[in-house]
Amino acid sequence: MSEPIRFVDIIEKKKQGSRLTESEIRYWIRGVTDKSIPDYQTAALLMAIRFQKLANDEIVLLTQSMQDSGITLDLSSLDGPTADKHSTGGVGDKLSFLVGPLAAACGVPVPMLSGRGLGHTGGTLDKLESIPGYRTDLSSERFLAIVREVGISIIGQTGELAPADKTLYALRDVTATVDSIPLIVSSILSKKLAAGPDALVFDVKTGDGAFLPDREAGRELAKRLVEVSAKAGKRSAALITDMNVPLGAMVGNALEIAESARVLRGEPGGDMLDASFGLAEQTLLLTDRAKDAADAARQVRDALDSGRALEVFGRMIEAHGGDPAVLEDESKLPQARCRRVVKATKAGTVTKLPARAIGLLSMRLGAGRETVDDRVDPGAGIELRKKPGDAVSKGEDLAVLYAENEDRLDRGERDILSIYTIEDKSFKRGPSVLETVLSETGTE
Amino acid sequence: MSEPIRFVDIIEKKKQGSRLTESEIRYWIRGVTDKSIPDYQTAALLMAIRFQKLANDEIVLLTQSMQDSGITLDLSSLDGPTADKHSTGGVGDKLSFLVGPLAAACGVPVPMLSGRGLGHTGGTLDKLESIPGYRTDLSSERFLAIVREVGISIIGQTGELAPADKTLYALRDVTATVDSIPLIVSSILSKKLAAGPDALVFDVKTGDGAFLPDREAGRELAKRLVEVSAKAGKRSAALITDMNVPLGAMVGNALEIAESARVLRGEPGGDMLDASFGLAEQTLLLTDRAKDAADAARQVRDALDSGRALEVFGRMIEAHGGDPAVLEDESKLPQARCRRVVKATKAGTVTKLPARAIGLLSMRLGAGRETVDDRVDPGAGIELRKKPGDAVSKGEDLAVLYAENEDRLDRGERDILSIYTIEDKSFKRGPSVLETVLSETGTE
Repeated sequence: MSEPIRFVDIIEKKKQGSRLTESEIRYWIRGVTDKSIPDYQTAALLMAIRFQKLANDEIVLLTQSMQDSGITLDLSSLDGPTADKHSTGGVGDKLSFLVGPLAAACGVPVPMLSGRGLGHTGGTLDKLESIPGYRTDLSSERFLAIVREVGISIIGQTGELAPADKTLYALRDVTATVDSIPLIVSSILSKKLAAGPDALVFDVKTGDGAFLPDREAGRELAKRLVEVSAKAGKRSAALITDMNVPLGAMVGNALEIAESARVLRGEPGGDMLDASFGLAEQTLLLTDRAKDAADAARQVRDALDSGRALEVFGRMIEAHGGDPAVLEDESKLPQARCRRVVKATKAGTVTKLPARAIGLLSMRLGAGRETVDDRVDPGAGIELRKKPGDAVSKGEDLAVLYAENEDRLDRGERDILSIYTIEDKSFKRGPSVLETVLSETGTE
Repeated sequence: MSEPIRFVDIIEKKKQGSRLTESEIRYWIRGVTDKSIPDYQTAALLMAIRFQKLANDEIVLLTQSMQDSGITLDLSSLDGPTADKHSTGGVGDKLSFLVGPLAAACGVPVPMLSGRGLGHTGGTLDKLESIPGYRTDLSSERFLAIVREVGISIIGQTGELAPADKTLYALRDVTATVDSIPLIVSSILSKKLAAGPDALVFDVKTGDGAFLPDREAGRELAKRLVEVSAKAGKRSAALITDMNVPLGAMVGNALEIAESARVLRGEPGGDMLDASFGLAEQTLLLTDRAKDAADAARQVRDALDSGRALEVFGRMIEAHGGDPAVLEDESKLPQARCRRVVKATKAGTVTKLPARAIGLLSMRLGAGRETVDDRVDPGAGIELRKKPGDAVSKGEDLAVLYAENEDRLDRGERDILSIYTIEDKSFKRGPSVLETVLSETGTE
């Protein structure tokens, strides 16, 4: 006599710290998808998972159940192995526009699905949409055609992939269960499994501007992403990168496209270059396009130096309906109505420039969203003329603010002066790539 | 600039283990009462509380907020101090019918609010309703008039007292958050504060048939009940009593009324007497009706021996519309259609008779409810002729089962033989009252 499943018993089991079975996890996600399990029971289970965690096997089952709640893209028409990159989100994070074209220029097909910004973090789609004409809402047929043609396409996450994740994420957002590593891993991977690339490179940010500020939590997330990907049959690697300081000098939508173009044109890439080279090299290694790390580094360097990565980015923009001339002429990008140069009020060395505060300021200047319904100003943002480790004299340019009116700039000027810490001591910034987490064969 | 309260921040705070403020707790319970806070957020907070607990101060605030969600009874017309008894529920637990009349016979007004049984535990109201004519749904005016006239009245918990508790409890039941001591304490006390007695005696059961089987959890519950009662201005005491074995010999609704009457008529009370004397004595001490423990013991003993407690119980039954003759003549109580004497299949000493299994068997015989909508059979149940520590010879009467048909008895006979453990060794039962937890002045 088999008893019918009572969902409260599944919650009880996880609350007590036991592992859930495949049928229990599938029952849950089916119930989330067809709405037969009430939100209050799912909310209780999410909080129980927040405290009792999930083992890797449970995460794989949860991830696959969420993947099965929607469609899976068929990438067989691409000349694989294919790869996608995922970032946990940061401030000034324009690495997709470097890593994607670099990898594609080395022959890796990159079908990339991205999201929008919220709060202090920017979103890849918002940045791309600052390019006049660029469309992020293409059909999957057109998406695949562009990848075949150009080597890379970046579009928005479609609602047809892992819809259960969308439901769960909305519930996590209002029940204080966002900060659960097993739930983060299954949320990220369910969409990636549905999108179908063969290899995944993860950029896990750590530091005050990261989604998970704590270094240990970031390391745990990176490890889990790689382990669970392996169990789900995907090759992957994760870089843990520093997000205590904004990446690069530009924060804002059109500003970040402009800065990406500068780097692809060969201007100094600073802290962006290490991270984007690291991620692109892993992409080549995971897709068997490089015979070893030195070969990967040489190929990626050449893709940049030869201008091929810039060319690939331009062709992708064109294929999406955008104007590729923005890559050579920044004046073709949207410009903010008002601009303010902020000067240092004292001399010394910049010792702190917290990413989170810069991200929130950029949002208040109009570049980001406080709620999902807010509109973003494509031209708004911040240009950081000085970063930690830089010497500055009194009266020297510190930053340039961009916004639609002087009011926002007035408030912004006060804010940015309080965000910069300038001290009379020397200071040297650490590396931007902190650790690389590779999949080990045979773990677990 | 005061930010509006976001309930997700309250969940986050408790999830992180911080204390909630009075305004946060009141905001929650107001939102539960007026349904402005969705159940999924409350469910997440309940699970966070299950893991992070509540300090006594938070429990007091939660209890008072729940009390304030409904009406509070006005007991000023009673010749106080008044007292009520609360049991966490057990098997064969008829102590209300002993403690209540004993205390009332000693002059303590006892306005008692009780509940129904569910699962393996019986309910005081179900037992009283097995008395032909007894009504448990009287108005609060009639309830108070009976307490003034007779000294005691036992009615059902009205929905007007602490309605927020009803909502929360229903949600806890389906979200696996019933087993949280802070939530149990606030649930019990919110109704008791609303009902308004000056003193409270708690019977906290421990053992396999108890709501909280673990002794340490029972001790924690007893301690918290007494501490929080003190902070809320109520005098109280808690007894921790054994529920590894059913209380008394009878399990079932009419059967337990019959057994209570036997004890009040002076028949041996066995394990029931210690617990009911202990609770009644505490009631006298807490309401200043006894000058010390010896005086309380003497008064309670006299209330039993003189027949006054029996008389009070009879008058209460009459005032509620019931037939008091049931106390002298058991044949006036509902009788089960079928009866089966079960005989021992081996000789030895009874060493185990788990309360939970007996409670579940009694439920299956018809005396209890599997779900809240089930109807109870007033005559069904079990008479335990042998209890742990008793010697038994092969073929001797072990128990008598009562049910509405032979089918149930057939299954019941197999079940009860497997529930009894009879071994060839001596065994002595421990005491039924394990500990007494008194309020200490100045704790916390």
